[in-house]
Amino acid sequence: MSDVFSYIQAELPKVNAFLERQAATLDPVVRPIVEHALLAGGKRLRPILVLLAARALGAPAQADPYPLACSLEILHTATLLHDDILDGADLRRGRQTAHLVFGPREAILAGDALLALANRLVAEYGDPRLTWVLSEAILRTATGEAMEIGATRRPDLGMDRYLEIITGKTAYLFQGACQCGAILAGAEEALEDAALAFGLHLGVAFQLVDDALDYTSPPKATGKPEAGDLREGKVTMPLLSYLAALPANEREDFCAKFSAGPLDEAEVTEHLARIRAGGHPEIARQAAHEHAAKAAAALASFPSGPETALLGQVLDFVLSRSK
Amino acid sequence: MSDVFSYIQAELPKVNAFLERQAATLDPVVRPIVEHALLAGGKRLRPILVLLAARALGAPAQADPYPLACSLEILHTATLLHDDILDGADLRRGRQTAHLVFGPREAILAGDALLALANRLVAEYGDPRLTWVLSEAILRTATGEAMEIGATRRPDLGMDRYLEIITGKTAYLFQGACQCGAILAGAEEALEDAALAFGLHLGVAFQLVDDALDYTSPPKATGKPEAGDLREGKVTMPLLSYLAALPANEREDFCAKFSAGPLDEAEVTEHLARIRAGGHPEIARQAAHEHAAKAAAALASFPSGPETALLGQVLDFVLSRSK
Repeated sequence: MSDVFSYIQAELPKVNAFLERQAATLDPVVRPIVEHALLAGGKRLRPILVLLAARALGAPAQADPYPLACSLEILHTATLLHDDILDGADLRRGRQTAHLVFGPREAILAGDALLALANRLVAEYGDPRLTWVLSEAILRTATGEAMEIGATRRPDLGMDRYLEIITGKTAYLFQGACQCGAILAGAEEALEDAALAFGLHLGVAFQLVDDALDYTSPPKATGKPEAGDLREGKVTMPLLSYLAALPANEREDFCAKFSAGPLDEAEVTEHLARIRAGGHPEIARQAAHEHAAKAAAALASFPSGPETALLGQVLDFVLSRSK
Repeated sequence: MSDVFSYIQAELPKVNAFLERQAATLDPVVRPIVEHALLAGGKRLRPILVLLAARALGAPAQADPYPLACSLEILHTATLLHDDILDGADLRRGRQTAHLVFGPREAILAGDALLALANRLVAEYGDPRLTWVLSEAILRTATGEAMEIGATRRPDLGMDRYLEIITGKTAYLFQGACQCGAILAGAEEALEDAALAFGLHLGVAFQLVDDALDYTSPPKATGKPEAGDLREGKVTMPLLSYLAALPANEREDFCAKFSAGPLDEAEVTEHLARIRAGGHPEIARQAAHEHAAKAAAALASFPSGPETALLGQVLDFVLSRSK
C-alpha cells in the first residue's frame, strides 16, 4: 500500500534539490542565511499539498509542479525568518535561529529576498492568478501575525478572534497551497473552491492541534520549558476553554495576573495542571476534528484517485500527530 | 511651459488618493502602520517614473497606470519600513519612524504586508512579466542592503563593490519603475531596454548625489548631526575618494580607527573638513554626472514628446538637488 509517508519520502529529495538550486542562485551576502533557514529540514507540508492537489485534480504531465510547490515552502520560510525575530525565538527545526547566527538585520533582508524569490518563481508560470493567490496568502499571513501580537496577554480575546488569528497566521498558506495546485491543474471553479476549502480547514485543524500540543507535550529535548504559550502570554484555545469554565472570581484573578506580565513558575505549574485535568487541550483537538470534517467534506468532491486518498491521509496525520 | 514640477503637482493627488484607498483595504491591525509609513509624503519619484515612462512610450489610454505606479511606491515604502529597523533610524520624512511608534515586530509585518500588496496590485494587470520585474527588483534591493550592512566599517571596500551596493539598494527599483512603464506601454524590446538603462543609471546617479549630500549638507533642522555616514561607518564614494588621496600611513591610521568603531567628535570634525576641502563630495557628483550621461543616452532613443522631455528634467533634478 502506498501511503503518504512513502509519497513524502519519494518527493522530499526532489523538493529539497530544487530548494538547494534556488538558494544557490542568490548572492553570497544572503545565501548562507537562506540556506540556514531553508535547508534545515522541516515537514515540507505546504509543497506536498501543492503536489498532491495538482495531481489529484489532473495537472497535465508537462506542467512542472516543483517551482510552484517550492515557492510555498520559500514563502513559509520567509515568514518563519521574520517570525523568529518577532518572537525572539532561539531554536527552529533543532537549529539556532538565523537572526541569532547572522543578525536580525540580515535575517529581515533574507526574508524579504525569499518573499521576492517565491514571487519570481511563480511569475515564471505565466499565470497571474497564481501570483494573486500567493500575494493574498502572504498579506493574510502577515495580518494574522500582527493580530496575534496585538492579542498577547489579552485573555479577553474571544474565540472568534482567536479563530481569525489562526486562520490568518497559518491556514491561508495551506489554503494557498491547495488553491495553487488546483489552478496548475486547470481545475474548474467548483473544484478549485473545494481545494481552497480543504486547505483552509486543514490549516485551521493543524494550528488547533499545535495549540493543544503546546499544553500536552512534555518538556522538549531542546531544553525548552513546557507550556510555552502560557508562559509567553499567547492566548489559544485550551486557555480560552479553561477560562470559560472557571468561576467568575477565579477568572478575574487569573486575567488580571496574566495581563500584567509573565506568570511565576508556581502559577504556571498550577494552571497547566488544571488545564490538563480539565481536558481543555482535548477540547481544542475536538475543534480540530470539526474542521477536519469540513476539510474531508470538501475533499469528497475531488475525483477519486491515489492522490485524493493521500490528501485524506494528510488530514489524518495532522489530527493524530503528537509532536 | 509645462515642467516636471507642475506634472508632479498634477499627478500627486491621484497617486496619493490611490495609495490611501489601498491602505484602507488593509486590516486595522496593520493599517495604521502602513498609513503612517505610506502617507507621510515623500517625493513619489518611483511612481512618477512609471507614469512618465509608460506615457513616453505610448501606453494606450485604456491601460490604467496608477496601480502599477503605486505598487512601486508601496514596494519602496516596504523597504523603508524594514530599512529603518535595520538602521535603528529615528526619523523618516520628518516623522518618527514606524518601528518606534508601533514596535519593530509590527513594522516588520507591515512591511511584509506591503510587499504582498504591491505584488497583488501588479498581478491584477494579468502580465506575469510585470510581476517578474517587481520580484527581481525587491530581491536585488534586499541583496544590495545586505551587502551594505556587510560593508559597514570596511574602508577597504573598493569602488566596484560600492557601485554594486548602490546599484542594488537603490538603482534596481528605479530600473524596475521605468521597465514596468515600458512593459505597460507594450514597448518593443529595444525601447524596453532603453527604459531599463535609463532607470538604472538615473538610480545610480540619485544615490551618488545622496552620498555626496551627506558630506555637504549642514546639520539638519531635525537635529540630526551632519556627516551621518562618516559617523555610522557607512563607506560611500566621498570617503573612498578621500582615502585614495591620503598618504599610505595616514590612510592606514584612519582605516584602523574607522574599522574599530565610531570616530570621536574631533576626528569627525577633522576628516569632514578634509573631505570637503579635498573636493571629494564633488567627485561623487562628477560620477553622478557620468551616470546621468548614460541615462540621457538611453533616453535619446525614446520617441520625442512631452513625457520624454520631462524624463530629461527628472534627470536634471536628480543631479541638481541640494537636499
